[in-house]
Amino acid sequence: MALHYDVVVIGSGPAGERGATQAAFFGKKVALVEKEAVPGGACANTGTIPSKALRETALAIQQARSRDAHGIELHVSGAVTIPELMGRRGLVTAREHSRIRNHLNDFGVETFRGTASFVDPHRLQVTIPDGSSQTLTADTILVATGTRPFHPSNVAFDHARIYDSDSILMMSAVPRSLAILGGGVAGCEYASIFAALGVHVTLVDSKSRLLTFLDAEVSRALQDLLAMAGVELHQESRATKLEPGDRDVLITLDDGSRLVCEKVLVASGRIGNVESLNLEAAGLQASERGLLKVNENYQTTVPHIYAAGDVVGFPGLAATAMEQARVAMTHAAGHSYKQKLTDLLPVGIYTIPEVSSVGETEETLQAKGIPYVVGHARLVDNARANLIGEAVGFLKLIASPTDQALLGVHCIGPNASELVHLGTAVIALGGDLHYFIHAVFNYPTLGEAYKYAAYDALDKIKSWRPASAEGTAAAKPRAVEKAG
Amino acid sequence: MALHYDVVVIGSGPAGERGATQAAFFGKKVALVEKEAVPGGACANTGTIPSKALRETALAIQQARSRDAHGIELHVSGAVTIPELMGRRGLVTAREHSRIRNHLNDFGVETFRGTASFVDPHRLQVTIPDGSSQTLTADTILVATGTRPFHPSNVAFDHARIYDSDSILMMSAVPRSLAILGGGVAGCEYASIFAALGVHVTLVDSKSRLLTFLDAEVSRALQDLLAMAGVELHQESRATKLEPGDRDVLITLDDGSRLVCEKVLVASGRIGNVESLNLEAAGLQASERGLLKVNENYQTTVPHIYAAGDVVGFPGLAATAMEQARVAMTHAAGHSYKQKLTDLLPVGIYTIPEVSSVGETEETLQAKGIPYVVGHARLVDNARANLIGEAVGFLKLIASPTDQALLGVHCIGPNASELVHLGTAVIALGGDLHYFIHAVFNYPTLGEAYKYAAYDALDKIKSWRPASAEGTAAAKPRAVEKAG
Repeated sequence: MALHYDVVVIGSGPAGERGATQAAFFGKKVALVEKEAVPGGACANTGTIPSKALRETALAIQQARSRDAHGIELHVSGAVTIPELMGRRGLVTAREHSRIRNHLNDFGVETFRGTASFVDPHRLQVTIPDGSSQTLTADTILVATGTRPFHPSNVAFDHARIYDSDSILMMSAVPRSLAILGGGVAGCEYASIFAALGVHVTLVDSKSRLLTFLDAEVSRALQDLLAMAGVELHQESRATKLEPGDRDVLITLDDGSRLVCEKVLVASGRIGNVESLNLEAAGLQASERGLLKVNENYQTTVPHIYAAGDVVGFPGLAATAMEQARVAMTHAAGHSYKQKLTDLLPVGIYTIPEVSSVGETEETLQAKGIPYVVGHARLVDNARANLIGEAVGFLKLIASPTDQALLGVHCIGPNASELVHLGTAVIALGGDLHYFIHAVFNYPTLGEAYKYAAYDALDKIKSWRPASAEGTAAAKPRAVEKAG
Repeated sequence: MALHYDVVVIGSGPAGERGATQAAFFGKKVALVEKEAVPGGACANTGTIPSKALRETALAIQQARSRDAHGIELHVSGAVTIPELMGRRGLVTAREHSRIRNHLNDFGVETFRGTASFVDPHRLQVTIPDGSSQTLTADTILVATGTRPFHPSNVAFDHARIYDSDSILMMSAVPRSLAILGGGVAGCEYASIFAALGVHVTLVDSKSRLLTFLDAEVSRALQDLLAMAGVELHQESRATKLEPGDRDVLITLDDGSRLVCEKVLVASGRIGNVESLNLEAAGLQASERGLLKVNENYQTTVPHIYAAGDVVGFPGLAATAMEQARVAMTHAAGHSYKQKLTDLLPVGIYTIPEVSSVGETEETLQAKGIPYVVGHARLVDNARANLIGEAVGFLKLIASPTDQALLGVHCIGPNASELVHLGTAVIALGGDLHYFIHAVFNYPTLGEAYKYAAYDALDKIKSWRPASAEGTAAAKPRAVEKAG
């Protein structure tokens, strides 16, 4: 006997949870299917939260080193395992589980444990772990099945020395050395975390700079800070051969050079969880990397089937996933309230220190031929950054020289992912550099850096002259000049 | 031979430094007089920065306790002194000194070491430590001499067991027990810091709730969190007698009850540094607590003599002091740019956890008869707060039920003093609750709490009905109801 719902959501990660509650908020009868015994997906259980728990411990160890408080000593035992170092992981994950369950219950979302598979475009078979199954039909379906680490076919992930970004968190001991193959977000985050834990990290990346979607100055600063933290960086480079031995792994790079490391993390991006969905029965097809194509309403090519979160691809961030799902379910409900995802999507990268940005970069503005000035505030001049022992990095504001409008905010430094929210609001609400000049910031705070970056940008504007015939030619050299 | 300047600034704390550079920015010839060998005043040298350095160590110890990471242990030696516990103080203060000196140099501000004293309203005698003196004359004078801890005449501060808020930072050992007399900002901050260091703290305050300028719900939450941290709170209570012995101090309260503590911190507020100014020669008079009265331009009763910072009284916060001095010097220069201090002055209190607020409180709105709703987000539901081991407190938004405008932001929790800046911008730029609903917040961040508090407030608005004849009667019970 099939059970009918207005909306069936597949997956209970950030997108699934918020999609389900958003639909229920509009009065829909909603069911959510989750294949695991616990809700939360990769975010709560295997990726985001666990890696951030390890990061907090690494950060505490690094800050203790810089604290230099006599009479206080931090001891790290040599035999400690990675799960042991993720001190708060158990508590945080357990709280997320109960928060998600309460949230779904509060909105009357019915949950099914099992693996969902399309029978036809409106019909799903949910196979329950005991082997029995239940058929659900729905007017609207939201696919929010997320992703998992991608495994290149030529890598033997079953070898005890070779890990992906999930299994690395189960590592039985902190290695002396770790090679990370792939300099994406996960690769960079783990490089800085393991370096802070005292591991000799080698990061191999195929591109000429890390995280090419970032403002180039920030990307270069991240490279410098990783290098200062002891990370050995091999750029425009690929591993062509992994040869595990009894005590280490021999890695050959495409230029013929060789590295020996105790363990290897292969961080080759992620792949969508679509295999068990039987997409063909719904008339859908995923990309080679298991991603579903959606329009701006998060509809797949079958209009009543929506997809949101990591399974639709870039940026693959929990924050954006939640909003995509909310927008999708608002569209499905025919509601006019939140029909579009904001253009101002912040990016938060949890390296040590953090990197975060929103809005235009120097490169996007140059490409569009839009003139701009930039203002910097170095965090070594910020009292709070010094107090917390992370006086590195900078806050960079990009603004229009003609009307002082704020166009982009880029930060590398402690709590950057928090700090960027203020700039996001100022851009969204049409504020300009003068907002920061007139505002009072608590002292000591990192937020104060906005005021000094705004002063710097206004100072640049005083001497700025519009380009004559050459378009942005006048703005561009200025930007280069003060970036130094 | 008198040297003439457009502007002479007395004091190099937050107000003096920013007043001097602001005047220099307008092309004025500026001299700054500082009586100490190092710049920065109480902020960099005796109060703000040193106490925050101690707070960082206390916070690290508390977070290590909650981390529960096997294999990592934090040891605090029993014989440690308070100066040793202020691990980063030396570095942070040294960086502040060089930042201030560079800032003054960059703007061409000339500095004089010595004690300034009025000869007449335009003439100051600066007595240099070697006993010689220099006369300075000026068109405009800015008094930014700050404050120091107030010493009630009946307390023997020279006794080895009795401290003020400066001398406590020189304490030779962490005491087993500490009585703090006075529950103002300094009293509350030190109570939470010493409690986190494992000291049994007794806080004696004359008022019925702590920090009465705060939203009452936040103030009560602070009391609860202090109590949970082990602080013994005596409210509506005063110490009438201090009897130091060889090993402790016997304190008698006005209700006759007695306490025994190893050390006592008398936190009776602050008093203006005006004695050496010879104010009479300028035609000025300070209050009993050494404070100077100013108008909204920060002019004293003698129009060319301005005063800013702690020496003009409440709120006595570095952040506000800087802006007061900038506004004062902009007014003195006759410039139209920043003629008025913003109404949106955030308050940041560095207890553990922090407290910060901006805009209206429930109490100010009730007094004005303005209807409102509130929305809460508990930080125990916030992934980042759980990750950093400070999942306590809440973010509270106060908004208009009629147009959803944001009216006030109140936060008690980790990094509250940073978090409040986003709400400040949204209020200043005319944003409303819907801003938070549409914005994407990095995950995991504390900032996310804004979205959930906004959802909560909008939910309250759905069931809100305007009061009929009774004015705010309808809004008020609602607020009480959901505060529980």
